[in-house]
Amino acid sequence: MFRFLVCRGIKGGAPQKALSSLGSINPARSVSSLPFATVDAEEISGSQPAEVQNLVQGKWTTSSTWNTLLDPLNGESFIKVAEVDEAGIQPYVESLSNCPKHGLHNPFKAPERYLHLGDVSAKAAHLLSLPKVSNYFARLIQRVSPKSYQQAHGEVQVTQKFLENFSGDQVRFLARSFAVPGNHLGQQSHGFRWPYGPVAIVTPFNFPLEIPVLQLMGALYMGNKPLLKVDSKVSIVMEQALRMLHFCGLPVEDVDFINSDGKIMNKILLEVDYVAWVCDQDAYACSGQKCSGQSILFMHENWSATDLISKLKDLAQRRKLEDLTIGPVLTFTTEAMLEHMNKLLEIPGSKLLFGGKELENHSIPSIYGALKPTAVYVPLEEILKDKNFELVTKEIFGPFQIITDYKNDQLPIVLEALERMHAHLTAAVVSNDPLFLQEVIGHSVNGTTYAGLRARTTGAPQNHWFGPAGDPRGAGIGTPEAIKLVWSCHREIIYDYGPIPKHWEIPPST
Amino acid sequence: MFRFLVCRGIKGGAPQKALSSLGSINPARSVSSLPFATVDAEEISGSQPAEVQNLVQGKWTTSSTWNTLLDPLNGESFIKVAEVDEAGIQPYVESLSNCPKHGLHNPFKAPERYLHLGDVSAKAAHLLSLPKVSNYFARLIQRVSPKSYQQAHGEVQVTQKFLENFSGDQVRFLARSFAVPGNHLGQQSHGFRWPYGPVAIVTPFNFPLEIPVLQLMGALYMGNKPLLKVDSKVSIVMEQALRMLHFCGLPVEDVDFINSDGKIMNKILLEVDYVAWVCDQDAYACSGQKCSGQSILFMHENWSATDLISKLKDLAQRRKLEDLTIGPVLTFTTEAMLEHMNKLLEIPGSKLLFGGKELENHSIPSIYGALKPTAVYVPLEEILKDKNFELVTKEIFGPFQIITDYKNDQLPIVLEALERMHAHLTAAVVSNDPLFLQEVIGHSVNGTTYAGLRARTTGAPQNHWFGPAGDPRGAGIGTPEAIKLVWSCHREIIYDYGPIPKHWEIPPST
Amino acid sequence: MFRFLVCRGIKGGAPQKALSSLGSINPARSVSSLPFATVDAEEISGSQPAEVQNLVQGKWTTSSTWNTLLDPLNGESFIKVAEVDEAGIQPYVESLSNCPKHGLHNPFKAPERYLHLGDVSAKAAHLLSLPKVSNYFARLIQRVSPKSYQQAHGEVQVTQKFLENFSGDQVRFLARSFAVPGNHLGQQSHGFRWPYGPVAIVTPFNFPLEIPVLQLMGALYMGNKPLLKVDSKVSIVMEQALRMLHFCGLPVEDVDFINSDGKIMNKILLEVDYVAWVCDQDAYACSGQKCSGQSILFMHENWSATDLISKLKDLAQRRKLEDLTIGPVLTFTTEAMLEHMNKLLEIPGSKLLFGGKELENHSIPSIYGALKPTAVYVPLEEILKDKNFELVTKEIFGPFQIITDYKNDQLPIVLEALERMHAHLTAAVVSNDPLFLQEVIGHSVNGTTYAGLRARTTGAPQNHWFGPAGDPRGAGIGTPEAIKLVWSCHREIIYDYGPIPKHWEIPPST
Amino acid sequence: MFRFLVCRGIKGGAPQKALSSLGSINPARSVSSLPFATVDAEEISGSQPAEVQNLVQGKWTTSSTWNTLLDPLNGESFIKVAEVDEAGIQPYVESLSNCPKHGLHNPFKAPERYLHLGDVSAKAAHLLSLPKVSNYFARLIQRVSPKSYQQAHGEVQVTQKFLENFSGDQVRFLARSFAVPGNHLGQQSHGFRWPYGPVAIVTPFNFPLEIPVLQLMGALYMGNKPLLKVDSKVSIVMEQALRMLHFCGLPVEDVDFINSDGKIMNKILLEVDYVAWVCDQDAYACSGQKCSGQSILFMHENWSATDLISKLKDLAQRRKLEDLTIGPVLTFTTEAMLEHMNKLLEIPGSKLLFGGKELENHSIPSIYGALKPTAVYVPLEEILKDKNFELVTKEIFGPFQIITDYKNDQLPIVLEALERMHAHLTAAVVSNDPLFLQEVIGHSVNGTTYAGLRARTTGAPQNHWFGPAGDPRGAGIGTPEAIKLVWSCHREIIYDYGPIPKHWEIPPST
Repeated sequence: MFRFLVCRGIKGGAPQKALSSLGSINPARSVSSLPFATVDAEEISGSQPAEVQNLVQGKWTTSSTWNTLLDPLNGESFIKVAEVDEAGIQPYVESLSNCPKHGLHNPFKAPERYLHLGDVSAKAAHLLSLPKVSNYFARLIQRVSPKSYQQAHGEVQVTQKFLENFSGDQVRFLARSFAVPGNHLGQQSHGFRWPYGPVAIVTPFNFPLEIPVLQLMGALYMGNKPLLKVDSKVSIVMEQALRMLHFCGLPVEDVDFINSDGKIMNKILLEVDYVAWVCDQDAYACSGQKCSGQSILFMHENWSATDLISKLKDLAQRRKLEDLTIGPVLTFTTEAMLEHMNKLLEIPGSKLLFGGKELENHSIPSIYGALKPTAVYVPLEEILKDKNFELVTKEIFGPFQIITDYKNDQLPIVLEALERMHAHLTAAVVSNDPLFLQEVIGHSVNGTTYAGLRARTTGAPQNHWFGPAGDPRGAGIGTPEAIKLVWSCHREIIYDYGPIPKHWEIPPST
Repeated sequence: MFRFLVCRGIKGGAPQKALSSLGSINPARSVSSLPFATVDAEEISGSQPAEVQNLVQGKWTTSSTWNTLLDPLNGESFIKVAEVDEAGIQPYVESLSNCPKHGLHNPFKAPERYLHLGDVSAKAAHLLSLPKVSNYFARLIQRVSPKSYQQAHGEVQVTQKFLENFSGDQVRFLARSFAVPGNHLGQQSHGFRWPYGPVAIVTPFNFPLEIPVLQLMGALYMGNKPLLKVDSKVSIVMEQALRMLHFCGLPVEDVDFINSDGKIMNKILLEVDYVAWVCDQDAYACSGQKCSGQSILFMHENWSATDLISKLKDLAQRRKLEDLTIGPVLTFTTEAMLEHMNKLLEIPGSKLLFGGKELENHSIPSIYGALKPTAVYVPLEEILKDKNFELVTKEIFGPFQIITDYKNDQLPIVLEALERMHAHLTAAVVSNDPLFLQEVIGHSVNGTTYAGLRARTTGAPQNHWFGPAGDPRGAGIGTPEAIKLVWSCHREIIYDYGPIPKHWEIPPST
Repeated sequence: MFRFLVCRGIKGGAPQKALSSLGSINPARSVSSLPFATVDAEEISGSQPAEVQNLVQGKWTTSSTWNTLLDPLNGESFIKVAEVDEAGIQPYVESLSNCPKHGLHNPFKAPERYLHLGDVSAKAAHLLSLPKVSNYFARLIQRVSPKSYQQAHGEVQVTQKFLENFSGDQVRFLARSFAVPGNHLGQQSHGFRWPYGPVAIVTPFNFPLEIPVLQLMGALYMGNKPLLKVDSKVSIVMEQALRMLHFCGLPVEDVDFINSDGKIMNKILLEVDYVAWVCDQDAYACSGQKCSGQSILFMHENWSATDLISKLKDLAQRRKLEDLTIGPVLTFTTEAMLEHMNKLLEIPGSKLLFGGKELENHSIPSIYGALKPTAVYVPLEEILKDKNFELVTKEIFGPFQIITDYKNDQLPIVLEALERMHAHLTAAVVSNDPLFLQEVIGHSVNGTTYAGLRARTTGAPQNHWFGPAGDPRGAGIGTPEAIKLVWSCHREIIYDYGPIPKHWEIPPST
Repeated sequence: MFRFLVCRGIKGGAPQKALSSLGSINPARSVSSLPFATVDAEEISGSQPAEVQNLVQGKWTTSSTWNTLLDPLNGESFIKVAEVDEAGIQPYVESLSNCPKHGLHNPFKAPERYLHLGDVSAKAAHLLSLPKVSNYFARLIQRVSPKSYQQAHGEVQVTQKFLENFSGDQVRFLARSFAVPGNHLGQQSHGFRWPYGPVAIVTPFNFPLEIPVLQLMGALYMGNKPLLKVDSKVSIVMEQALRMLHFCGLPVEDVDFINSDGKIMNKILLEVDYVAWVCDQDAYACSGQKCSGQSILFMHENWSATDLISKLKDLAQRRKLEDLTIGPVLTFTTEAMLEHMNKLLEIPGSKLLFGGKELENHSIPSIYGALKPTAVYVPLEEILKDKNFELVTKEIFGPFQIITDYKNDQLPIVLEALERMHAHLTAAVVSNDPLFLQEVIGHSVNGTTYAGLRARTTGAPQNHWFGPAGDPRGAGIGTPEAIKLVWSCHREIIYDYGPIPKHWEIPPST
């Protein structure tokens, strides 16, 4: 599933720092000299209406349709928002679709981005600590979401502190992983935090700066590419904040920003889901028992040069019904599996490597399947063809696998095949070459991945996390982390026992 | 949202320990002496079919409808499963509905249950370490999900190790919380892991013991009450495992166990959602900007005896449009808010405490709202009445609140009101009495809760987690934990570099 | 034990960031305008020698003795360091001694200091990110510890990034604690990170800025008060850095800074140890088995007004030798205990509350002790007197305790008594008043503290950490944390597999 | 430094579980059938005295000297303890010395031992949960450390729960490490918990089972080899507990157990320090500024076959005084360094590779050093010779290094050289071969280790832990973990607010 976050409103005011130090700020206007700003918070009015643009694929754009906002204090038409209609969604769909599921960065891909985002945060925090800048945003907030100056300024301060918190190395500390010794020498299981890739954020009107900045930066820090939609009534604040972040070094392609109504937004997300990968919600529906792993073996040319296939065949042929090392298939009949095999064998270049026949001398009832261990070879280039891809990657929950091979320079094609699959439970990367492992792990999203020359799904320590990645509802099993993340939610209690400071008096309203 | 987990199948075999030590196990039958077992794994056959029952509200039950299973190896009708049909779902709905959202236990409620479940796990782990018991389950698995003895036995072993892992104090270690110093003396923010309350687990056929036991125990450890449905083809294994867990001390009311088709299961879950709380999925839909907190003040009789209300009134009246300490409401018109107020004032015993009028001398356009700070008193017993509850707890995203009061012995009624609300974002419990705080926190689920005499939503440290609890998709904001949990997913890499052990040889097939 | 850290040299250069962005820095002089600096890195020479001062109790001071340094590049006498000799150590001893063992702050004392130090760090990080400032320190380092400009500048950058890392809320995140549910409702065990109070840091010449700033700030963040001594050959760098930190808001009393030889430093530390608390190294010596807890009951006047003492007496008298609820004392003879008791009874106002006699009808050999449960009352003001303190707080490892009482306004005297004791293993604070608990916990250092109305040493969950605080060698027992901290040390492996960037070329020497 | 733990006594009783379930235990004798026990707790008396043996190198031994204990209840000579005198310490010294500093296991060495110790714990926990066994130990405790049966039994129960806590995978979870992304692709820093290797534990009389078992198992879990000495008055309890642990699978060589007086124990520890490695306490003394890293390059034959040395020479010769890429040495004069070099060149087979001359055209004062970058080759086999080892590994804090080379089968010799060095700060293992890295890392203890083809001390991320390993007082720098571990200690607060259970009554004395 696509990570799609709708932020609900927050009642009652942002947490604030003591505001006593605000005395020196002159809330009068001083905007014009801000190098990133394109509007003047004080001057927006019916006679000088401001314009809010969209951002996609690194470019600020307007639109043929303008949505006009009334000043909540006097009813003047004071802001024009460029709204994207159905005809205009294609660039947003493309932009999201171009981000792979493994994200813009992860611990095995472009880790320098963690540091860079730490720098962006430090710089933005410093800017927001300047009275001129914090006043600009406080006033801009007041214009569209009327609240007292202290409340609006408090929102800016919370945002500023948040950015300070993720300065320097603190972004990469968010990607901290852990590892536990395995069952034998050379084995270790590692738990990583992985991005979702393309994501969408929809935020409400009541905290026009704090909510979108915090969620946006959080999404970026972890390696996602966000499409951000803020309630149009207040989106001018975040449009200006994005310009400030660009000024501080945020790459302009990292975030897309859209003004639209909910229907258009929904349409984009549906298209992204369809284009990038079909939503696997059926995997979560109650009706079926679907397996999350397509059974396919990608064999590097170095392995092809060995007798690997012939050994696989020998081992498969040792299996027998008597000791149940081969047995009935509960979800597919023999006929269905053979029919599937025959369709595969029609693909040019494909061939039966072994198996492909019904078990002999068995009394398995016909509602179940009875097939010898079977492997079908399909050429890599054929797998990737649109007309074949779904057929080849169809899950057969039985003793059936696809085998293909690739040359060294075809690794990107293999990775593309992985990206296009719909389910990402397990995989094994059988190599002891750290650079190869890094390349494959950094460009894939299987929730449980076995890596190394002894990598295999049946030899892992019993305590490892077993579950899919890429879906916020994905449920792991087998470890303390799995139990905590799947079966409980976070709850925060803020104790504030006091004492009340001596000489405390009721402060002015805010 | 209800925590509803569908476990997908797992391809390729459970992780296993080295099996070399299995030599001494005699796979021959020896079941009859197991004190918890109601079937004999070896004897099940067409002539002596086994029966699988359901468990609800602590009682094993049969059903008028039996589903008959064929032996996958020879086609005999060898197991009869009592299937629950639509007429029989009421006890399951009731059982789930009776579990509050804050669960059977949490760090502030019945913590001795953490220890007790640690004991149950230790005892069950010991039982499963006995060859007689592990062989029983391995053979039972083989009968319904044919695989080699080593594979079936491996599944039992993984389950046994899992239970060992959560012996002793390890269950309570799962509930480990953390805390961070606040902004001033007496303030600290604490992050807890909170249960969801009633939950449902649906598991597939391929690992009839391991998947349901691991997910079931995980759910129980964290304080949930699970309804478990295993694929009927293999549910006999888990039925026997539940009997073993009861034998080890698991309270019989802790888990319900049902055999049914997916439609029936779905119906139960929908009813639970409806009875216990209306699904708040609209909170996540794209269209609206909904706030998650109902604005209501429950005033203990000790506070009622003070001049709290009159002080509230004085402070409200200091607010003025000029400095925006009161301002336009962006989502409700004045008219809509007054209409809501008038409906409330029709409730017997209710009264306007202050406000209730449009702002004076304003130029706020009529599409927005302009209301003086308003408070309406409604008697507690009226709030709880079905005909009033929805009206009173309706969210008005404006300067509008409900005030009620309660006597010391009415605290359970207040807690019931909290339980019945649909959204659980923030709350403040204004007391320095640790026992009172414990009672209220332990019986509620607000995601962000302020506690203590200085508790207030606007004075918390900027770095605290802000978000709702009770929904696996709930998204927090503001802390490193929030970023990690909302914007990334877990990925596990199991490295297995080797070396291959000296003198290694190909083992027999499994 | 006093936390006393000698930093050893670091071989081979500080870790550095890519230096490619340094092109725009003009290493020519531009120091004069730095508002905190008192020397000009470029101008220091034999004709214009610089002076290095000391800092104690918030005041910069010189000395009657000057140590003159030769310029390592040309032998000129270019820096004069004010060295503290034996006559001058008193202010340093006093300054350290005035810091209590529980530190300048901890989670229960002055938590706003965590935030303040986060602000200081953010400001200092920003200053060091300015080319003018980083160049100043790089050049100053080069003058006293000759290395290439890139190496010196790299040291400044690492320091800058470190300060960024602990901006905002990140200092208080270092004080993150954890908690685990207890055995029954109302019980929880919490693990905190506690400061040592006064500490000393001695750093070498090779990284004149990085090592002292990182260790100094680390010590400050956790709540300690450091006395810093940098190798005099390079201490000018840190003297200027301290002035910069003061400019960024660091309170001038937080750190003392001394130039001296090792003997003088040693003398200060010994005096601090003697004045503030006698070193408890005997507790760690091999010879004896010393208990860490003085047995003493401080009774608040509210308790005194009850029949607590008479109940204690009744319960003590129920104990009998037959069931070993009272038994032989293995480390003190009866005679020794009675002699100790009689000495206590000579203190004015003291009295025997109960016990004080040998057991009757026993056959315990005379090398062991046989005493009835005994309690002696001693007035609080007498306990605090120097002539009595050691006697009253002497550990008797037997059924023997001191009881005293105090009025509400005498709590500071009780806390002073706790501070003066030498061993800090366990304590119980029997109250449910959160403000009282906060006051006592925040001003004490017992490693294992039981708090709450049911607080008692014999009813805690079996899994809690049991061990003394206040000594870096202190060893806890009973929890996973204890095992990890006591029985293993940290080891860091930095993997750097590559790949080598394309088109990489050998850079210039640094 | 050697990890040497003296456990102080614990006052006031072990934490206990509710004892209400003890009713069914018959405290009468039933020992004889315990398969591991060599004494009968009830029968020990003056006429049938028990004997306590020592355990070393896997063998139980007696001694020529017996220490006779008096029954504390009646004065009879009831236990004889085999005391080791000065003549007998050699086997203990050897046994400890044979354990390398990197321990019996660590995440890169024998990880199956983590699992095995989990099994031992599960089995021992099960044994201690049997009334027959727990009663045996409770009675044995009562015989030597007289306390009530409930107190003695409580001690057994706490021990039992502790062992349950570390069943299954929980031992390896203690070795959980963490990792943070590095500065560029392929770089990651990992933090591990590392054992100390040989350690000693001295425990007091008051908790004869709980304290030694908890500390002993903690030490074993993390990979250490402990020598255990329990107060002779009560050591019979732990002697029997060790026999039980052996019965549960603990290898007999894992723990040595000694009865002796403190002087003998001290002597063993001093010898171990001397034999295994000279105590590096001088590194911590105030006087000097000592670097922890010996500068030495071990070159694998594959590297020798390249032009690595000639490239090193070229790069060294690019350095010049003008830009300070070579500069004055602050702690050694030119003369001292040349003298050291000449001594090295007297070793057979050694030769000057480059440098070895004073800098030209410099004005560095003669109190400092001025040397060209210098490398001396010494053959590996010469380095290991006792007469050369100290000379070759002497730290020269200047531009001076030793270079040697080794053939593939000489890796164990290289590892031996690392083991014999006295300081273990940094190392770089320059290889991308995961098996080679595993071998070297698993058999060494450098606190900060750089691994991989790009491994180098000057290119690591600025946020990595920098510090030595192997000393409990070792102080890291540079990371949040370093700050927390170096500058604060653990403090535990156990809250117990209540409520008091209804109908609670004063229980009998214990």
